[in-house]
This record gives sequence, structure tokens and C-alpha cells, in this order.
Amino acid sequence: MNFLEERIVKDGIVKPGNVLKVDSFLNHQMDIALLDEIGREFKRRFADKKITKVLTIEASGIAIAYPVAREFGVPLVFAKKSKSINIEGEMYVAEVESFTHKNKNQVIVSKKFLGPDDHLLIIDDFLANGCALQGLITIAESAGATVEGLGIAIEKGFQIGGRVIRNFGYHLESLAIVDAMDAEKGTITFRAQD
Amino acid sequence: MNFLEERIVKDGIVKPGNVLKVDSFLNHQMDIALLDEIGREFKRRFADKKITKVLTIEASGIAIAYPVAREFGVPLVFAKKSKSINIEGEMYVAEVESFTHKNKNQVIVSKKFLGPDDHLLIIDDFLANGCALQGLITIAESAGATVEGLGIAIEKGFQIGGRVIRNFGYHLESLAIVDAMDAEKGTITFRAQD
Repeated sequence: MNFLEERIVKDGIVKPGNVLKVDSFLNHQMDIALLDEIGREFKRRFADKKITKVLTIEASGIAIAYPVAREFGVPLVFAKKSKSINIEGEMYVAEVESFTHKNKNQVIVSKKFLGPDDHLLIIDDFLANGCALQGLITIAESAGATVEGLGIAIEKGFQIGGRVIRNFGYHLESLAIVDAMDAEKGTITFRAQD
Repeated sequence: MNFLEERIVKDGIVKPGNVLKVDSFLNHQMDIALLDEIGREFKRRFADKKITKVLTIEASGIAIAYPVAREFGVPLVFAKKSKSINIEGEMYVAEVESFTHKNKNQVIVSKKFLGPDDHLLIIDDFLANGCALQGLITIAESAGATVEGLGIAIEKGFQIGGRVIRNFGYHLESLAIVDAMDAEKGTITFRAQD
């Protein structure tokens, strides 16, 4: 197991309904040393890519993406959800269905911050059905930017998101892929990766 | 001027209605080197405080708070807004009126992550009317935690938030305090601080 898989086994909590709670270290309370290590790991995995910006989505993607942007020495842009009135002017908009909120959101990035010269690394904490990533990819494409890769902390391998994104030919790296969870036993099965 | 004031003058945009846009470097697209410097500056200003956790609020507080938590070597906890269904169990709840969304939100922190042994540094990007910080202070007090200090990147000095929080005796450090803005001339007047 890698460092994130070990931490998930140690501190993650499996709940009924295929919910994996990582709130004590990843997406409510956050362990900065762990996140910094995640940043270094994504830098290793995408070291050969030319990256001009890191793109993520609020809110829990931000803390995963911060150390990645730091490692690459590039700006971090986060897509906002539609209720913000504080973005004016021209915006890229994509529609995204939120797994946690069970509704549709529009996600928005100002046109000022993405363009055809950009080579993006898209980062998020979880990948389940893939709609958030698909929204970010749509925004990147609207901007004419190149998606050099996508980095996910935890992929739910039993949901379709990973397969869809890989089938489109994108370079997707998920640090931990959960292929199965058992809430009664509290066990997690990770997919073996090279 | 300090490093943040200089950046605000260089890249900030004054809009009518006392709106200061810092979206190109602070809260939509983010300059990680600048944010890291903000983290170091808050570490200097609160160096004598015992801090066990950094507390902030989603979403734009997270990137300001990340480097602060990193400098102090402590976990970062961010308060979530009420629409998240992914927090269960016992929670601290405070009601906060959002300046940007013109409505009331409940902000929530799981009781697992704040307690009476905690000494908190509360961090956010903007301070205007102070309701977000008051909500975080309320949550801290509900938990029995000690608020050792509050750190704000940009305070709108012509709004009441800073005065209220200082009047309550809290140690509030704002890296830039904007006392006036002129949208027509594009000028910003910072409060001189030691």
C-alpha cells in the first residue's frame, strides 16, 4: 500500500451506501503533511508534462490542489459553483451533478484565467461518477486549453468515472482506487497499481 | 506598503460599490508563492501563541489558511456551509450572513475536530462586516476552544467587522486594511499599520 492507502486504512471510515469518510485527514480536517506528500506524489507522476496551471473545483479540491500547484510552481485556479455573485464578466460555464449534494450545479471559471496557451493538470479529492471532472474538462476545452493530466486522491473504482475518463484517452492518476468496501466489516479493497 | 498591499495595488481592481477584486492572485486564480508568504507572515505575527489548529471557512479561506497551518505544523479545519450532506453526527453550527451571496448560511464543523484543548488561529481571506468570523468564533466557543488570534488577508476598514472583533478583545491581524477605495480613479487607501 502507498502512503495514502495506509492512511485510509488507518483513519478512513466505511459507511453504508459505499461512503468512505476521510474527514479526519483529507476533506474537513486536513493533515497538511499528508497533503504536501500528495503534492509531491503528483509532481512525480506528471513530471514529464508541461504544466502552466493547476485547475480544481471548490471546496475540498482546493487543499489537494494547493500542494500540487506549489510543486509545479504554477498558479492554482479553482472552479466556483454557481451561487457566487462575485464573478462578473465573461465566464466559462459547465453543468455538473454533485454526488454529495444530489443536485446540479453550474461550475464557473473566469475567462481571464484559462486560455489556449494553458496546459492544465486537473486535481480533485474524490472521483466517483466523474461529473465534476467532466465539467472541468469541458471548461478546459471551452478555453482551448490542453488537459495534460488529471490527478485524484481517491477514486471509487466501482463507479464509472475513472473508466469514462480513461476511455476518452486522458492520463488519469488516482493515488488510491477503492474497488470495494464493506461497511459491516469496515474493510476496504484497493486496486493494485504499478 | 507590505508585500500584499503592493500586490493589491498592482493587480487588484476597484469596482463600484466598494468591491475589491483580487481574483487574479488571491481567491479565484491563486499565486502560491504569495500565499506561502502570507503563511509565513501570519506565523511571524502569531509566533508567541500556542496553536493546535487553524480554522477557516470554505471556500476561499482554504487557500489562505493552508500555508498558515503548514507553517504552524498543525491540522487545518474548514467550516462547511449548510448544503453539504456529507457531514453526519454531531456538529457545531453557527448562522452566518454571507456578504457575497446576500443570504444566511449555516456553517458547520464536526464536533470530532474541535474541543476544549484546542487553541485556534482563525484565518480568512476577507473581513468586511465580520459575520463569517463571528460564526467561526461562535463555533470555537461552542467547542470550548480558545481563540488565540484571527488572521485576515484583506480587511475592509470602512466596514464594522474589524472594529467589532477588536472591541471584543480578540487579537486580529489584517495584512492589508483598506480604509477607502475610489472606483473611478482606481485608487486604494491602506491604513498605516506598525
